[in-house]
Amino acid sequence: MKKLLSTVFVSLALGACTYTQAPDLASTDSSNTPKNIIMVVADGMGPAYTTAYRYFNDNPDTAAIEETVFDRHLVGMASTYPARVSGYVTDSAAAATALATGVKSYNGAIGLDVDKKPVETVLEWAKKQGKSTGIVVTSQINHATPASYLTHNESRRNYNAIADSYLDDGIKADIYLGGGWEYYIREDRSLVEEFKSAGFHYLDDFKDVNNLPENKPVLGLFGKIALPWALDDSNEFRLSTMTKAATKHLDNYQKDNKGYFLLVEASQVDWAGHSNDIASAMAEMRDLAKTMEYLEQYVNDNPDTLVVLTADHSTGGFTIAADGKYEWNPKVLHTMQRSPQKIANKLAKTDVTVIESSKLLNFSVTQAEVEVIKQAKIEGAKLAIEYQALDKNAQKLVKIKPSVKNSTYVAVKALIDKRTNSGWTTGGHTGIDVPVYAFGPSKDMFKGKIDNTDIAKNIFTLLGKTK
Amino acid sequence: MKKLLSTVFVSLALGACTYTQAPDLASTDSSNTPKNIIMVVADGMGPAYTTAYRYFNDNPDTAAIEETVFDRHLVGMASTYPARVSGYVTDSAAAATALATGVKSYNGAIGLDVDKKPVETVLEWAKKQGKSTGIVVTSQINHATPASYLTHNESRRNYNAIADSYLDDGIKADIYLGGGWEYYIREDRSLVEEFKSAGFHYLDDFKDVNNLPENKPVLGLFGKIALPWALDDSNEFRLSTMTKAATKHLDNYQKDNKGYFLLVEASQVDWAGHSNDIASAMAEMRDLAKTMEYLEQYVNDNPDTLVVLTADHSTGGFTIAADGKYEWNPKVLHTMQRSPQKIANKLAKTDVTVIESSKLLNFSVTQAEVEVIKQAKIEGAKLAIEYQALDKNAQKLVKIKPSVKNSTYVAVKALIDKRTNSGWTTGGHTGIDVPVYAFGPSKDMFKGKIDNTDIAKNIFTLLGKTK
Repeated sequence: MKKLLSTVFVSLALGACTYTQAPDLASTDSSNTPKNIIMVVADGMGPAYTTAYRYFNDNPDTAAIEETVFDRHLVGMASTYPARVSGYVTDSAAAATALATGVKSYNGAIGLDVDKKPVETVLEWAKKQGKSTGIVVTSQINHATPASYLTHNESRRNYNAIADSYLDDGIKADIYLGGGWEYYIREDRSLVEEFKSAGFHYLDDFKDVNNLPENKPVLGLFGKIALPWALDDSNEFRLSTMTKAATKHLDNYQKDNKGYFLLVEASQVDWAGHSNDIASAMAEMRDLAKTMEYLEQYVNDNPDTLVVLTADHSTGGFTIAADGKYEWNPKVLHTMQRSPQKIANKLAKTDVTVIESSKLLNFSVTQAEVEVIKQAKIEGAKLAIEYQALDKNAQKLVKIKPSVKNSTYVAVKALIDKRTNSGWTTGGHTGIDVPVYAFGPSKDMFKGKIDNTDIAKNIFTLLGKTK
Repeated sequence: MKKLLSTVFVSLALGACTYTQAPDLASTDSSNTPKNIIMVVADGMGPAYTTAYRYFNDNPDTAAIEETVFDRHLVGMASTYPARVSGYVTDSAAAATALATGVKSYNGAIGLDVDKKPVETVLEWAKKQGKSTGIVVTSQINHATPASYLTHNESRRNYNAIADSYLDDGIKADIYLGGGWEYYIREDRSLVEEFKSAGFHYLDDFKDVNNLPENKPVLGLFGKIALPWALDDSNEFRLSTMTKAATKHLDNYQKDNKGYFLLVEASQVDWAGHSNDIASAMAEMRDLAKTMEYLEQYVNDNPDTLVVLTADHSTGGFTIAADGKYEWNPKVLHTMQRSPQKIANKLAKTDVTVIESSKLLNFSVTQAEVEVIKQAKIEGAKLAIEYQALDKNAQKLVKIKPSVKNSTYVAVKALIDKRTNSGWTTGGHTGIDVPVYAFGPSKDMFKGKIDNTDIAKNIFTLLGKTK
């Protein structure tokens, strides 16, 4: 218990809760045209996530609830619905296409309109205006959101074709940081080698991200597909670290001092939402908050930079409280140092005891909770055997292949949901409007209720594009 | 089928979808001190409700999705957490106390701080400044929200004491419109008679609400407890009708032309949320939208009036989509003309057939859906018998007394949730930040991320109160 408590303390001290002082942004002119534009997309971050982060970040020992970086910069909310053909609930591709091009499209579309015609993106236009460009993501760099700023494809699922297009359609960014070895180093083609031949500096060790060459464009890939969950990564602040590196690189690298357009995506808030995993969601939000705090400081030092943050949609139907109880208890999340997925993978392979579970979750687990996990493992093993007995066609109808690992994962998340009193309604997306944050010159263009397409339209305007 | 379709058409034409033209509010000065302040509280209306209303209100036959009155006036969002002693999730009493006094309190508190000391409300202060005052609600007038503006009590549950205080502590409003016969005409005391003796005009027939005497204060009570659900009321726009009547009355009645403070509460969005009833929620939102459209016009004609709208919290954990499906289908809600509660009460007493269910719900119900309701009735009857067999103490542990009626109600709501693909996580409240809307002079005071207490603080400032 003493150890647990001291871990709480260390964790609080080291950044589980960040009580930063806001830099003075009062001097940034809110009407002028910015030289640099940084667009931050937090995939899946509906208003329940930004609100929950405030309470996750709260120090319960102080009288007041601490303001977050999000609280300081809210300017309005955005609707996210896709083109009418796809109803009212968007996927990440149509939403990113709207944010990147100002055009509504069908779910699945990457930089295309509903007639599957390519539409120019703000990143492409920025490049044409002589600005440097970059992308920083925690997913693979050819995932839906970055792809919608960089290329055009009829389906987000065409990962290899999208990866290829980053070279074949002309290289559009000066720095790419994220994951994606599986797509960029393939048997049929090594895009990494081609990037190198095109003059790029390539790195695949995260430690090197702070030592980028000033005079070369950069491709940094740090994962087979995505980067690990923030909770499992050696650097839980990998998005903020990459964002810092990218802004510094773009400051040095820009041609004729014309400024840059940078896309930053907190990709995995969405994935935590899909998994209904509040522990990972809050850890991803913590990395995003750190990123935004860095960008606050950056804009303070570079008042010609506009930062806009929004989400493409909300995910999971996450709610702050559930089951009739008027409470939400994020305290157990403060000490967690592994993702529920990683914890479940370990518990699936070992004897589940109070000591082992408490060690892995890093908070005190009860015997009753242990029994529930044990029961889930037995059930998972039973379902796995039943699944094996099905014929191939029947197996295809089962969405998630049953296993001890999966049942354990579900049980671990249920334990955390019960402790925190978190609610979920879906493994998919929901249609709620998302918050919009902005600071720097012309931030007021984004205020009030806007549509996701207005964000691209405003950026085009700021980049001098007229209809 | 033809009848159903024609009903859709009529319903669309008559206001199921309202496509109003926004009045020109550009001329309203946004910096001056308003003469009149109208505070609108939509109880339980988190951001999922205002977003959902946009899609409910959408005309699917047009290319674009129609803008709502909410979209036109969003200025920011507010946090709703109560005093630390009550955690992060507020009830309506603590939230209304925060909105009315600028002070956080414990859940249940009516106009008191955490030490149970009375705190002055903006309505009380407005009255002291010589302004007229009024309240318009669809709940009983002594419910948590109006009570928090009008009185001080350690518990929202003390309904009779709260009702008494409206007289015993001095009459504080010049017009009261809402429900509450049960509390105002009691065996031990007729507060209605006392109001009359104090010079009030009393009315209890809704038809008379448009004929209020110019020279007398008014008490209008239109229900034993609350008014009926919008879907069940003879006038589905009863909040907008009452608001119109109250503003007209206050225009005539104000002393020395000093203006007024009016509280309007859309009380039953919250109750629909507690019941997880999306049909009633959207009908309550439609009445609120009509109210806001009227107030838009009113501010256009009276540019010295400030209108602020927010929610006290969100309710039900409602999500726009559920169960992994990327869709929300409000179309069936357009034709509904009875609340699910009323429909269930009828189906509980009759033979459930496709014809009868389709007639009551006013959309085509399938045989499979009918079978589910039938099964629920059988289950409800079984549970009711089991409940009767329990001893008194065991019965007390059962939250909702089982009955055929209740099981039918649950089944009807589940049918609607499945058709619309709506999700819910709780019968209580959630902690998500709520949207803030404002128009008229000094509306910009409410922009960005604020706290619910800031709303009262801003109103106090506008009413000339200094610390």
